[in-house]
Amino acid sequence: MKPQIASILTILSLFTSASLLANEPIQPIPTKAEVNELQSELGKKLYFDPRLSKSGFISCNSCHNLSMGGTDNLKTSIGHNWQQGPINSPTVLNSTFNIAQFWDGRAKDLKEQAGGPIGNPKEMASNHDLAVKVISSIPAYVEEFKLAFSSSKVDIDKITTAIAEFEKTLITPNSRFDQWLAGKKEAITLQEKAGYELFKTSGCVACHNGVAIGASTYQKMGVIKPYKTENNAKGRFSVTGKEADKFVFKVPTLRNIELTYPYFHDGNASSLTEAVNIMGNIQLGKEFTKEEASKIVAFLKTLTGDQPSFKMPILPPSNNTTPKPDPFGK
Amino acid sequence: MKPQIASILTILSLFTSASLLANEPIQPIPTKAEVNELQSELGKKLYFDPRLSKSGFISCNSCHNLSMGGTDNLKTSIGHNWQQGPINSPTVLNSTFNIAQFWDGRAKDLKEQAGGPIGNPKEMASNHDLAVKVISSIPAYVEEFKLAFSSSKVDIDKITTAIAEFEKTLITPNSRFDQWLAGKKEAITLQEKAGYELFKTSGCVACHNGVAIGASTYQKMGVIKPYKTENNAKGRFSVTGKEADKFVFKVPTLRNIELTYPYFHDGNASSLTEAVNIMGNIQLGKEFTKEEASKIVAFLKTLTGDQPSFKMPILPPSNNTTPKPDPFGK
Repeated sequence: MKPQIASILTILSLFTSASLLANEPIQPIPTKAEVNELQSELGKKLYFDPRLSKSGFISCNSCHNLSMGGTDNLKTSIGHNWQQGPINSPTVLNSTFNIAQFWDGRAKDLKEQAGGPIGNPKEMASNHDLAVKVISSIPAYVEEFKLAFSSSKVDIDKITTAIAEFEKTLITPNSRFDQWLAGKKEAITLQEKAGYELFKTSGCVACHNGVAIGASTYQKMGVIKPYKTENNAKGRFSVTGKEADKFVFKVPTLRNIELTYPYFHDGNASSLTEAVNIMGNIQLGKEFTKEEASKIVAFLKTLTGDQPSFKMPILPPSNNTTPKPDPFGK
Repeated sequence: MKPQIASILTILSLFTSASLLANEPIQPIPTKAEVNELQSELGKKLYFDPRLSKSGFISCNSCHNLSMGGTDNLKTSIGHNWQQGPINSPTVLNSTFNIAQFWDGRAKDLKEQAGGPIGNPKEMASNHDLAVKVISSIPAYVEEFKLAFSSSKVDIDKITTAIAEFEKTLITPNSRFDQWLAGKKEAITLQEKAGYELFKTSGCVACHNGVAIGASTYQKMGVIKPYKTENNAKGRFSVTGKEADKFVFKVPTLRNIELTYPYFHDGNASSLTEAVNIMGNIQLGKEFTKEEASKIVAFLKTLTGDQPSFKMPILPPSNNTTPKPDPFGK
């Protein structure tokens, strides 16, 4: 090919990509997060530190395991003293794009969310005062707070700020679907492409759109038909008290959905096929054929991006002044 | 300095180092492990995979946390259903140098040890058949077994071989004490050096010697005076049935001892000072002065080496054929 023709083709292909992108209801995820590096590095340690729990056994990573799609892959989580959690742990991956945090959106951002499980008696079962005492007893941590916040005073505000700053880095770019969005036609198969078309024409995209392919609105679970579950969660109702908000939940992100099983707020759908069929049924009034469902599932599996890649943090040790873990109660 | 004189001094200093090293009862730890890389990489994933437990929540790393000195820093561990473990979790760091595994030495090597907790109803509460079913249901794992073992047949022998191969890499070279052993005089302070002298002259070194500074013999806990504890562990007696083996335990390694609190098989000593005083008392019939104990503690803190440094592994997802975790019983 002559150089000039190649250049023209390149320019044309860039035009095509740009217009392709602009017309799609799903947008590629940014490749890098803008964060305060020192706070994020400190937050990574805190995220993995089980000393934020009463038992000294449960860390943020226990239920939002970064080796497993930022979830625990359980229907509902295991908390302090093996208590069964009330709801499925949502993934921490790409959670910086969420409209708010928790299924019911009761925390406005990652920082507010991070304080929740630490003090929840069914989760980490510590409290903010104790968490601050533990962390501030450890000189290497205090030194890091000093560097990251220009103040060596450890408080819950700084602890949760640091954790949130780390969580903002947990974005997963470069999924095959994002590559396709960027113009790399061969990044997805015809089957996957057909699944995406079906995803759009069936109406899934009405809620699952944007950068996170969801996570930007609250929607009723059971628009067309009621959703049957033993789970007691009432969704936004618990936050607003409004009858209309009963069973209204934050739409979950579909990014990395192959990794974040089981599905729904009750974790009752163990497979993607099951989840797609139930969603079609109760949200859209559709009965997908086996072939249709498998196309949509094929598309969904193109949404797995690059997983977080970092060195496992080494935590500074406790000392004689550190409050001791209390796993078995006193 | 003239080049020749510098050379002569270098040679002299090497001689000094070599002879220094040869005369010391503690030997530096190797800087690198010889392992099968593919098996070790696979083993790293398995080490972090909670699907080897019945609940899907507990992995090897839960109780031998590589962010925390290869321990859980609890008196005794938390097992399936929050059961309280019978004994303190020993560090996995440098465990390749142990004479045998577990406090009572009931497993001859790391491979045999790795199979224990998986099937122990008080620990991971799975069983070997189920573990094999889980892992072999995951195509990406099967592919890795094929590469690492030239056979895609997953069995417990290969699972535990891979985990052991990874654990062999968990050695911690380059502690300040090892640097001193290698001839770098300024690597430890006078106080720490004095502590080491006291450690030798007091007799600690009789059991805590060699590459792992312990871990090479079994000794009675309570040589001079009986050790008082509520803990029921009987040590080697449970393996041999010999009366003389009652309360005889594997001598723990002192490497990274600052990180592997609390101490002893019952985890009853929460500080190094407490541990040193009790050991002096019941093993050596000595009452260390406050100053002596603090010198020995200062020496012990020079034994912290480079901690494991690797990227947190990403685990391949389960699928519809993978047996489901069962955290809350059926």
